[in-house]
Amino acid sequence: MTSQPIYLDYNATTPLLPEVVEAMLPYLTTHFGNPSSAHVYGQEPQKAVARARERVAELIGCDPDEIVFTSGGTEANNLAIHGVAGARADRPCIVTTMIEHPATAQACDALQAHGRRVVPIRVDADGRADVNAARLEINRDVALVTIMHSNNETGVLQPVDEFARIAHAAGAPIHTDAAQSVGKVPIRVRELDVDLLSIAGHKLYAPKGVGALYVRRGTPLTPWTRGANQERGLRPGTENVASIVALGAACTAVGRDLAEAATRMRLLRDRLEQRLAASIPGLALNGHRELRLPNTSNVRFPRCTGSAVLAAANSVAASTGSACHSGDVTAPAVILAMGVPQAAALGSIRLSLGRGTTQADIDQAADALVAAWQVAAAA
Amino acid sequence: MTSQPIYLDYNATTPLLPEVVEAMLPYLTTHFGNPSSAHVYGQEPQKAVARARERVAELIGCDPDEIVFTSGGTEANNLAIHGVAGARADRPCIVTTMIEHPATAQACDALQAHGRRVVPIRVDADGRADVNAARLEINRDVALVTIMHSNNETGVLQPVDEFARIAHAAGAPIHTDAAQSVGKVPIRVRELDVDLLSIAGHKLYAPKGVGALYVRRGTPLTPWTRGANQERGLRPGTENVASIVALGAACTAVGRDLAEAATRMRLLRDRLEQRLAASIPGLALNGHRELRLPNTSNVRFPRCTGSAVLAAANSVAASTGSACHSGDVTAPAVILAMGVPQAAALGSIRLSLGRGTTQADIDQAADALVAAWQVAAAA
Repeated sequence: MTSQPIYLDYNATTPLLPEVVEAMLPYLTTHFGNPSSAHVYGQEPQKAVARARERVAELIGCDPDEIVFTSGGTEANNLAIHGVAGARADRPCIVTTMIEHPATAQACDALQAHGRRVVPIRVDADGRADVNAARLEINRDVALVTIMHSNNETGVLQPVDEFARIAHAAGAPIHTDAAQSVGKVPIRVRELDVDLLSIAGHKLYAPKGVGALYVRRGTPLTPWTRGANQERGLRPGTENVASIVALGAACTAVGRDLAEAATRMRLLRDRLEQRLAASIPGLALNGHRELRLPNTSNVRFPRCTGSAVLAAANSVAASTGSACHSGDVTAPAVILAMGVPQAAALGSIRLSLGRGTTQADIDQAADALVAAWQVAAAA
Repeated sequence: MTSQPIYLDYNATTPLLPEVVEAMLPYLTTHFGNPSSAHVYGQEPQKAVARARERVAELIGCDPDEIVFTSGGTEANNLAIHGVAGARADRPCIVTTMIEHPATAQACDALQAHGRRVVPIRVDADGRADVNAARLEINRDVALVTIMHSNNETGVLQPVDEFARIAHAAGAPIHTDAAQSVGKVPIRVRELDVDLLSIAGHKLYAPKGVGALYVRRGTPLTPWTRGANQERGLRPGTENVASIVALGAACTAVGRDLAEAATRMRLLRDRLEQRLAASIPGLALNGHRELRLPNTSNVRFPRCTGSAVLAAANSVAASTGSACHSGDVTAPAVILAMGVPQAAALGSIRLSLGRGTTQADIDQAADALVAAWQVAAAA
């Protein structure tokens, strides 16, 4: 049995923190009741969901009743986008960006197929959405502006606050897909001044299959999936109690030392990039050097493909793009959108660190990637 | 610490079987990877999802690639209904019944709000949907027929196979919400001849927050929630690996002794009804005596409300209706739809047994309910 490769794919998914597993277990065993049940079996599950709601709210600085639990980031995005578009049928247009996650991009495409106009804002060479372009496109025809908080592949932080100002000046609510940001950088919804914000549990050390949508009080929103009255009718279906509890526990856990963890990850990430750059002439960074998540490095290897490097570096687990696109042989659209030519873009690898990453991991990974590049570039 | 009341609310939710918890735990710890990841961390989760798909398929007699995992029964129903309606925009009408779960009824209402015609078929005094009415309403205008397999409140089995024949003769696919049936009675989709069938994990000893939709190969279906390509694009979002594994394990577990468990539950259920009837003159049964789930008893207490009986019987945990409606002060719509007058219908209680129910539980519960009725009816 060989040891597992070094995991540098935390943007694809994260392991659960031990305290998160511990928090959820009682709700998979003893406290199995349906929170909607009026009898005693429903009571503890109901309280646990309420506590989890408080914990999620605490992490992003909103009120608990502004949190709607969902089955994950994809559903949160769909609820936000279809929900606002449905509630604002009077406004024909949706403004988004060219680099959104498929959950946003495809939800917008579905609206377009039903007659809405979707305007994707371009990004600059640093991978940031163009605020000036947004200013030209956002007007009183716009039902919703949706822009990710940080890009899942480059980690580049987007100008969400500036988009929010422009959206609100036009009377349009703004949604941000913060799936990759929550737990990695401080997020305060009041400061960002967003109306809706998506959270994905499995990106912040909670299980897959749970997420949340922050909905600012008063935001026009119709439900997406229909059914009974759970989540105030905004997201029906028996509550996924154990995973909701886990999401709450994860929010508390990551919030406890968010700044310290971010600094530690930034230092390790920068160390990794320095070591790669020192040995790989022509190594380039995709995206803005400063305005990005502290854990994410999207680097472009010269004279070979990222796939070839990863194939040769079997002691490192990373990806050439988001897990959602694995199997693609084209370069990630987000890299191309930044103006990187296809041939060069194919040299890209996303390295994403997490709370489990150690300095020894980084040094070993750097050595392995350098050696792999030497093999791949010589082939 | 007093002992917990006897749980007779298995139709609201079930405890996880120990082997189900055991099966899922490795996917909350060691095997945390994203099944879409190309590296080694993705491999075991990917295999586990494939195995779970085989297990679910095995229980209902279909091929694994006809199973789409969802976040639960509600989403499965929404996907089936919106998905077929979207794919068959040429046919204006949806046929359903008057006694569907809100996930079906509300999804149909949403379609109606968007211009489709929804025809709810009435039920007879036994709580079964009227096949003759269906024959009159199902024609070449019908995009989809959706009828539950068994009612969640009365347990009454619906004439799904007859509806299927009528639907297919009109060239319409048929969906059945089998959330309450799967794991309680044998379900073979080929024999039922249905095109879509919904499964809810937490009704069959798997966790909340996971379910599945059977989609017969060739059934016209557009995705509902949009995003990346998981579940062949029919249900995007990172797979809820641990819960999917749990659902697979639960399907295997309940399938192992389905007939024996059903017989055991039927005997206990009948014993409960006999004991209640022996001491409560005028006790009535809601729904067909034979054609119903073996675990479900929906009884009508005379001269008091079901709520009053349950309030006095604090050693029994049951409900006056589905958990989804708890808090309602009106009688369950399904009881009224059978022609029971409102005042009498308010005397109804749903008692639903499960694999954990013992004969001692039944005898104790019967005594407690009789005593409670005496208090409630005298008040």
